[in-house]
Amino acid sequence: MGSEPSLRVVLVSPRNPLNIGAAARAMSNFGFTQLRLVNPYQVAFREARSAVKAHYILEQAQVFETLSEAIADCTLVVGSTAAANRDLHVPLYRLEAAATILTGHLAHSPAALLFGSEKFGLSNGDMSHCHSLLRIPTREEHGSMNLGQAVAICLYELRRNAAAPAAEHRFPPPPAASAEQTERFTVLLLDLLARSGYTHERTSESTELKIRRLVRRLSLPAADSETWLGILRQILWKLRQGDQS
Amino acid sequence: MGSEPSLRVVLVSPRNPLNIGAAARAMSNFGFTQLRLVNPYQVAFREARSAVKAHYILEQAQVFETLSEAIADCTLVVGSTAAANRDLHVPLYRLEAAATILTGHLAHSPAALLFGSEKFGLSNGDMSHCHSLLRIPTREEHGSMNLGQAVAICLYELRRNAAAPAAEHRFPPPPAASAEQTERFTVLLLDLLARSGYTHERTSESTELKIRRLVRRLSLPAADSETWLGILRQILWKLRQGDQS
Repeated sequence: MGSEPSLRVVLVSPRNPLNIGAAARAMSNFGFTQLRLVNPYQVAFREARSAVKAHYILEQAQVFETLSEAIADCTLVVGSTAAANRDLHVPLYRLEAAATILTGHLAHSPAALLFGSEKFGLSNGDMSHCHSLLRIPTREEHGSMNLGQAVAICLYELRRNAAAPAAEHRFPPPPAASAEQTERFTVLLLDLLARSGYTHERTSESTELKIRRLVRRLSLPAADSETWLGILRQILWKLRQGDQS
Repeated sequence: MGSEPSLRVVLVSPRNPLNIGAAARAMSNFGFTQLRLVNPYQVAFREARSAVKAHYILEQAQVFETLSEAIADCTLVVGSTAAANRDLHVPLYRLEAAATILTGHLAHSPAALLFGSEKFGLSNGDMSHCHSLLRIPTREEHGSMNLGQAVAICLYELRRNAAAPAAEHRFPPPPAASAEQTERFTVLLLDLLARSGYTHERTSESTELKIRRLVRRLSLPAADSETWLGILRQILWKLRQGDQS
């Protein structure tokens, strides 16, 4: 995950303890620790503190009366917003691009990422403290996200790494059965189909061809071929028992 | 957002109405509509239905008794898991890569994305229905995410588009003030500094040089230069008033 970045996650006037808790949990999931709350609803903050797993983040969380104080030590301030069409006075970036700007800045200096209240988002006053704004690419018809989910998505995007190995645990395709194993399977299957009445006792050459192709399309793994041959033999044995009784 | 994709979001044994609601809300945010629930805690489902904004998704949601039935029409089944070290029998991809596989498949065929219960995640039985698994790149020390946040992040990643225009609303850097405007500003400032006692009445050449450089580092926008000159003149006028009284 790399070293502790100097990102401050700032929740402005949060009201719902579950959202404060969810923000802290997402921070813990993605390795961010500096949570700052501006003018939180005190009951909500107390409830959140007692509820969640990511308590070390909430215990360290700093509370400020004003946004100015909460961002005082930051040299880049980015606000999140769902409103694409407001009369904005700073650039509005899609999250994908804003995260690149933030990551570049965090490499050398502290930055703040602001989230507004659940009901109203960031006010125009809050936005006047921002150098730029970001928007999660939600549908225009339903742009407003749940606060805890919005925080989680932004932090995920900051941790996202397209260059990381794609698979944490991958299997090479299993080695395929040899032609000999596949043919033994085919012969047993043909016998089984004839004995069970699926085909006539004396199968036509074209039927045999169809079945052979059918078996080849299965891509039987080498490691499984003995198991399959055993299964077919057992069924054949059972069918023969039935014929004798 | 493109046309309706054939992704089925499948919640297996969800227990918390807030999480079901949060999953539905994230689906609405990112333009997915097909929610399927396997064996949900019925009270939770009823509560979620009455609570959230994204009610059209919950109204259309299908409920199944078994996972087999819920994924019957899907040709790719991907499960989400936080457990990196379990004894897995299918490939485990990072979300970034799994989303690419899912998007490719969804271009022509339906696929299911599975999320397990809040407490236990997907069982080994659930995972035996999966062609592959995905993991959101959380910290190893705290890998387990809130269900609603995990759904939101996965759907965001499916909608993510690094090729989209970075800025929805961008400003070109403001045209800079001309050398003449900047110099008028400098001259007024020098006067002000002298009159206010910040510098001696007769400033040395080196002080003038320092102030001139100080002003150039401001990169004064052309559109603001008259405002700034007005401000300086007003302060100068006030200072002169004081001197006369």
